[in-house]
Amino acid sequence: MSQAKMHIYQAVGSPNSRRVRIFIAEKGIDIPTINLDLGTKQQFSDTYKAINPRSVVPTLVLDDGTAIGEVPAICRYLEEIYPEPVLFGSSSKEKTLVMMWERRMEQEGFAAVMDAVRNSLAGLKGRALTGPYDYDQIPALVDRSKQRIINFHTDLDKRLTEAPFAAGEQFSIADITAMTTIDFAKRALNLDFDKKHKAIKRWYDIVEARPSSSM
Amino acid sequence: MSQAKMHIYQAVGSPNSRRVRIFIAEKGIDIPTINLDLGTKQQFSDTYKAINPRSVVPTLVLDDGTAIGEVPAICRYLEEIYPEPVLFGSSSKEKTLVMMWERRMEQEGFAAVMDAVRNSLAGLKGRALTGPYDYDQIPALVDRSKQRIINFHTDLDKRLTEAPFAAGEQFSIADITAMTTIDFAKRALNLDFDKKHKAIKRWYDIVEARPSSSM
Repeated sequence: MSQAKMHIYQAVGSPNSRRVRIFIAEKGIDIPTINLDLGTKQQFSDTYKAINPRSVVPTLVLDDGTAIGEVPAICRYLEEIYPEPVLFGSSSKEKTLVMMWERRMEQEGFAAVMDAVRNSLAGLKGRALTGPYDYDQIPALVDRSKQRIINFHTDLDKRLTEAPFAAGEQFSIADITAMTTIDFAKRALNLDFDKKHKAIKRWYDIVEARPSSSM
Repeated sequence: MSQAKMHIYQAVGSPNSRRVRIFIAEKGIDIPTINLDLGTKQQFSDTYKAINPRSVVPTLVLDDGTAIGEVPAICRYLEEIYPEPVLFGSSSKEKTLVMMWERRMEQEGFAAVMDAVRNSLAGLKGRALTGPYDYDQIPALVDRSKQRIINFHTDLDKRLTEAPFAAGEQFSIADITAMTTIDFAKRALNLDFDKKHKAIKRWYDIVEARPSSSM
């Protein structure tokens, strides 16, 4: 494996890459980046497959060549080696709540947007799931996923009436996942949260004002 | 909120509950348990909804009444307060690799079994996803999910030719998720790994021999 310093493979238009880009910006660190062009399917090259057999972005490659996939795992590693500012919570209880809420944002929100997009875009025919295997699109999954996103907006609004940020009192990785989800649904599906969701609006204006949101 | 000591809500037939039961058994700890009867829909009672608004099991309730949902978050909390034996890795790198592999076992394996089951069982009509919202079953998702499980078996076998356990040299939470996935697919879908998967067989015999597997 490479003897190079830690670096990251990512793609400009990839929402999963964006989650990591925002996380890195919040940490105020600089990690050498290699951009893959998903349009020309660079993620399926033999070179990249040797790094990430699932052929997905992003991948963090450590100093010793170990390749780390999966966004929460990548961010967790960065939190371990760059503890400040804290984005995964401080106490045992806070850490657990951040993990729970980040996961809910992802499973209820982000994953639903991904399903709606991948099962509908003409360019992703036969590629309904990321990864090394081909799966046909399922049109019924598009409608169900859009309904899930609407329900996610409702749940997120309720949550943000209880706490200033997704996981509680502090900005955390859960907010990064939630914001990325909101923007992804708006951009790819033209599906924005409703005007009645005043708590989302209040929170969104705050997180969007952070410099990291431009990542 | 309750002033009781830490306790857990779970259900006997729930594979997500089993993941936590095995984790607790591996830790050698004893946590007071309240069993919910999913058959009579106890998870949708107002009492339980007040504890877990998503109406899913398991939920860990801390000494101060804080309710923790989501299996990886529950297990993470238990790892924080009962560090031995280590089930999430020791060094920063190990921790990250455990998180990555546990997630892959869940997203590629466990979630696919769950999709195949919930979109096919007559008793789950209109309940294709766990949580507070009703979603119709999508028959096409059953076939796709079964294919995903077969691909998961292939990938897991390959992984277990590279390392003795799912996340590397040591038994970890990734093995708990992988074993639960294998057993869940076998029990609910009659879909076992193939005889040619000799690496899975070697690993499965070891993890199944641990006392925790009877949980």
